[in-house]
Amino acid sequence: MLSTALSAAPQSQPPVRVMPLPASIETGSGQLLIDRSFSIAVAGYHDPALDRAIARFLTLLSRQTGIPFWSASGGASASLLVHAEHRRANPQKVGEDESYSLAITPSRAELSAPNTPGILHGLETFLQLVEPSPSGFIVPALTIHDQPRFPWRGLLIDVSRHFIPPDAIKRNLDAMAAAKMNVLHWHLSDDQGFRVESRRFPRLHGMGSEGQFYTQAEIREVVAYARDRGIRVVPEFDVPGHSRSWFLGYPKLASGPGPYSLDGNAAPAMDPTRESTYRFLDKFVGEMSALFPDSYFHVGGDEVDGKQWDANPKIQAFMRAHHIEGNRALQAHFNRRLHKILVKHHKTMIGWDEILHPDLPTSVVVQSWRGQQSLATAARQGYSGLLSHGYYLDLMWPAARHYVVDPMSDAAADLTPEEKSRILGGESCMWAEWVTPEIIDARIWPRNAAIAERLWSPQSTTDLDSMYSRLDAFSLRLEWAGLTHTSARTLMLRRMAGTEEVAALAVLADALEPVKDYTRWKANPHADFHAPLNRMVDAVYAESPSARRFRDAVQAYLAGGHSDAALEAQIRARLIAWHDNDASLHPLLDDRSLLQELAPISANLSALSAAGLQALDYLSRGEPSPEPWRTQQLPLVARAKAPAADMLLMVAAPIEQLIQATVPPASPPSLR
Amino acid sequence: MLSTALSAAPQSQPPVRVMPLPASIETGSGQLLIDRSFSIAVAGYHDPALDRAIARFLTLLSRQTGIPFWSASGGASASLLVHAEHRRANPQKVGEDESYSLAITPSRAELSAPNTPGILHGLETFLQLVEPSPSGFIVPALTIHDQPRFPWRGLLIDVSRHFIPPDAIKRNLDAMAAAKMNVLHWHLSDDQGFRVESRRFPRLHGMGSEGQFYTQAEIREVVAYARDRGIRVVPEFDVPGHSRSWFLGYPKLASGPGPYSLDGNAAPAMDPTRESTYRFLDKFVGEMSALFPDSYFHVGGDEVDGKQWDANPKIQAFMRAHHIEGNRALQAHFNRRLHKILVKHHKTMIGWDEILHPDLPTSVVVQSWRGQQSLATAARQGYSGLLSHGYYLDLMWPAARHYVVDPMSDAAADLTPEEKSRILGGESCMWAEWVTPEIIDARIWPRNAAIAERLWSPQSTTDLDSMYSRLDAFSLRLEWAGLTHTSARTLMLRRMAGTEEVAALAVLADALEPVKDYTRWKANPHADFHAPLNRMVDAVYAESPSARRFRDAVQAYLAGGHSDAALEAQIRARLIAWHDNDASLHPLLDDRSLLQELAPISANLSALSAAGLQALDYLSRGEPSPEPWRTQQLPLVARAKAPAADMLLMVAAPIEQLIQATVPPASPPSLR
Repeated sequence: MLSTALSAAPQSQPPVRVMPLPASIETGSGQLLIDRSFSIAVAGYHDPALDRAIARFLTLLSRQTGIPFWSASGGASASLLVHAEHRRANPQKVGEDESYSLAITPSRAELSAPNTPGILHGLETFLQLVEPSPSGFIVPALTIHDQPRFPWRGLLIDVSRHFIPPDAIKRNLDAMAAAKMNVLHWHLSDDQGFRVESRRFPRLHGMGSEGQFYTQAEIREVVAYARDRGIRVVPEFDVPGHSRSWFLGYPKLASGPGPYSLDGNAAPAMDPTRESTYRFLDKFVGEMSALFPDSYFHVGGDEVDGKQWDANPKIQAFMRAHHIEGNRALQAHFNRRLHKILVKHHKTMIGWDEILHPDLPTSVVVQSWRGQQSLATAARQGYSGLLSHGYYLDLMWPAARHYVVDPMSDAAADLTPEEKSRILGGESCMWAEWVTPEIIDARIWPRNAAIAERLWSPQSTTDLDSMYSRLDAFSLRLEWAGLTHTSARTLMLRRMAGTEEVAALAVLADALEPVKDYTRWKANPHADFHAPLNRMVDAVYAESPSARRFRDAVQAYLAGGHSDAALEAQIRARLIAWHDNDASLHPLLDDRSLLQELAPISANLSALSAAGLQALDYLSRGEPSPEPWRTQQLPLVARAKAPAADMLLMVAAPIEQLIQATVPPASPPSLR
Repeated sequence: MLSTALSAAPQSQPPVRVMPLPASIETGSGQLLIDRSFSIAVAGYHDPALDRAIARFLTLLSRQTGIPFWSASGGASASLLVHAEHRRANPQKVGEDESYSLAITPSRAELSAPNTPGILHGLETFLQLVEPSPSGFIVPALTIHDQPRFPWRGLLIDVSRHFIPPDAIKRNLDAMAAAKMNVLHWHLSDDQGFRVESRRFPRLHGMGSEGQFYTQAEIREVVAYARDRGIRVVPEFDVPGHSRSWFLGYPKLASGPGPYSLDGNAAPAMDPTRESTYRFLDKFVGEMSALFPDSYFHVGGDEVDGKQWDANPKIQAFMRAHHIEGNRALQAHFNRRLHKILVKHHKTMIGWDEILHPDLPTSVVVQSWRGQQSLATAARQGYSGLLSHGYYLDLMWPAARHYVVDPMSDAAADLTPEEKSRILGGESCMWAEWVTPEIIDARIWPRNAAIAERLWSPQSTTDLDSMYSRLDAFSLRLEWAGLTHTSARTLMLRRMAGTEEVAALAVLADALEPVKDYTRWKANPHADFHAPLNRMVDAVYAESPSARRFRDAVQAYLAGGHSDAALEAQIRARLIAWHDNDASLHPLLDDRSLLQELAPISANLSALSAAGLQALDYLSRGEPSPEPWRTQQLPLVARAKAPAADMLLMVAAPIEQLIQATVPPASPPSLR
């Protein structure tokens, strides 16, 4: 089964497996060998951050090759010469020059950039170019000139629904750097938790986090860690909605009477009519502004539930007295006041779609979770914007579905060049209802690299096969950077099974993905963020590479008129493996509470694979299948395609296609 | 192939998979469920170290179950009540009471101990009792009374030949704690590197480590980390031999003229005739005594090469003047002086066999790398001793071979009870010629747990099947504690292959082990400790569980007269997988420099498996094989059994047994 993947891999490799794809590549001839003699030297601008970047580069190069490089700084004859012209701004600015050039010949490599962030990106590109070859580890001779399409390429990590400790944030910063993303949007407070130590208001984290928060020292460490990797950190404190956790310690901020708890579904909002709310926010923003040096400050502003405002007579009286018509206007009033506070503390305001209101100056940045339409509307009105609609990683979409979402497409395609220039980029979003520190890497990566590529590479970079080939290579490299997106699954399978021998369980897991969109959420509307996330749905990949490859093989086989014997053999081997897997797995499934829900799924996979094998027999013999046989498979296919245990059997659809393809050409399709 | 392991696992489980096996277990009826309501409370003696131990326990319990336990401290009705009577000594003493009792009923568990180290051990036992079951995670009802057989249960880690950074040392301390080992013997200096920052003599680490050393802050951190886990840290500074690294910075300590370098095979020794040597050692021991609080101080003393002493006229003159007869007496002179220095700094001297000399007081402890004989000799002369002979992890022995080595066996078996009481225990040794931080976990674990059990459990604990069953369970749990002994192999295979799809490569790796004893060393006598350790020999397990299970299956099948159809099916499935594996692997092997040496091995495995399948056919038909067929297999078997690429094909011998078994009963054996 795995043989096919192995033997296919070298053939399907594009010449350069770099992700995001560089803006321009000229291939050269030959290759530079990476052996024990490899060395690196720095010319031009030089600072301790660059030294640290080079030390990290050498560590990663050692991990990728197994060759120790701990004393690899060379002089004038170094294998890789690095040359930066300028130091970069502190704090890092939106739109600073991130370009670099990398020229590799069989005798040496040169990396140059106007600015150190370009050097960081170029070092990542170099690492991605290293491949094993018959003669050792090499990088191909080539010349790359590269720069990003958008200046703002972010990842939002929600740490409120489930706390994500600093070490997990750091390894994700490493992965972001590998994908050339440059903004960590840190969603630090929400209804379910307030995650930053506040010295001015210690009951915020003291009562709003169940002890799970970042100390200010930890925040500073993460911000410095990010800056070292060319990544800005934009904090988000979501107000006036999504703020229940604030009210446990400071109930007077709220519009309703309380009491408040972190659990449950209530969505109270801040009271925008009391001066004390703004005095609080002024002091709070002042404290946080010192902690987060970036010039942007995210105030959330999404999904304000007006019920508490409607129910509060004082708020209603205030609205009448100030001629405020409706809750949208009341939120605009709140945002105007908040904007003044941010300006006082030298911060640029950024918020979700809902903050868009003519009252706010065009210096405000709007982040669209609703779609390209609201992004385009904002741009027309003079506001800068970011796209997040289409980039929600928690929806468990395949990378390809995110990849085709372009900030400049749909409604934004009709904008004038000036309006288009207001679209700064986008951010993928990792909302944390269903993630823990153990799971989060696999929920973000490798799919997030496809979004990173959309935001970095030229708009014309759209080939899906090329993207997936490079995504596979990116995934492989990520574990060297300390990510756990594949290793954590192994440990989770072992936990469920109680043994290290989980190959058969992995065969099943590879055929599965979590249900998509908000299906799991809808099935579990009463959020309980203390519940264990230790089921198979939490372990399986959001997008299974094995299932994708099987689907591609089936489609290629069918498209080729069932004549490709090698493809047929691949498909057959996999169907046999799935069919046989159930018998070996079954005793274990019954014997482990966490595996019991998998028994019917494994049985369905086995039965469906048997049907797929029969279909393959008909196809390879060029014989149509008998109508009664096909009718018999209908309930089987329906059963296999239905969600079970919050998962989908992703290989059901391709097997269904095999069965459908056995219909005689003349007769009408009986299965659809 | 993996199905067999999975389905076999539950049947072969002993009732309790705890390692080391407790001194006494009474099984109860029923089980305690570990679910979200689990809580823990402490009664009796209580200190911050115990709080930290409980926090670690909860973290590990969370990892093992996937259930979040970050706020699981309960009160009087806690699921697990912990009760320690006393605080422990600081620094920890040899022979302090480490016993504990653990009583588990379906409603609650109680862990009590006279002393906090017992609590630490009991918490580890509890974690190992947690198993998945049809009704969820459980611990079985039982009562355990447990205490160690020997007070000194150590692991030596050599950090000189290859530097092992603090994080790798720490995770190995976690594994030691899980195995109830209580001494880290830290081999901190040797010819190839001096690894501790010395402020008195900064050229020791400054010129003797190539920048790879522990700062004093790191040393303190590791010592505190170990103490938290009930582990003493005994430093070793090997003198007067194995000390080349000292001489780069301080050549006057040496007996020869130098110059010295860290590379090469020269084995110079300190000059034992100069007063300045002892003034240096006095200051040095003084500095290190403050850094390492344990009362024992290891001075090495092994393998002193007398050539420099012989060649130095001043040393020869000194020996004549002081009537010192031979180099052994000269080393004794050195040790006498060194012993006085240690006494001055309140340290007990410990050294290898060679220090044993009537001149030294019996307070000195002798560590035997040569065998039970020298241990027994020392005990008879009144010296305390430790066994390391038979416990060298770098020899790549199977766990069973270490397991049968008992400190009280062979020459030691004849000692009087009083003499026996001088045998304090033993230490496994991880000499670091062929390890890096990436490899070391797999070179120590899980095999080291078998040695830990030998030193902890009653002498009568000798069942190998039981040991291996518990070793498998121990291995599984170790990765939760952060060990990388299985995950690192996956990453190394991916590195060699340049793809995440390494299942076929893993099938080959599972059939292989590194060559044993000093074979690799002898084949590579010119040590180069800067060379990459990134070949298959560095990735394969020292003892392959898959190869062991195959061998056991073959032996059980043959012992059962070829009648067990299930065993036959297991063996057949594995032989088919090995036979088929070569075809899928071959294109990759040729295409990657690090894999090329595997091509003939993979071909041998395939051909031999085909022969094994034929043998199985003869056996299952009850038919003897024809003589010409067997003769044909001879060169094939010989080829497969020969070391290749520094590895052994471990499954060759069992397949040879299958072939041998096809000999007709009457005829003489043709293969042996």
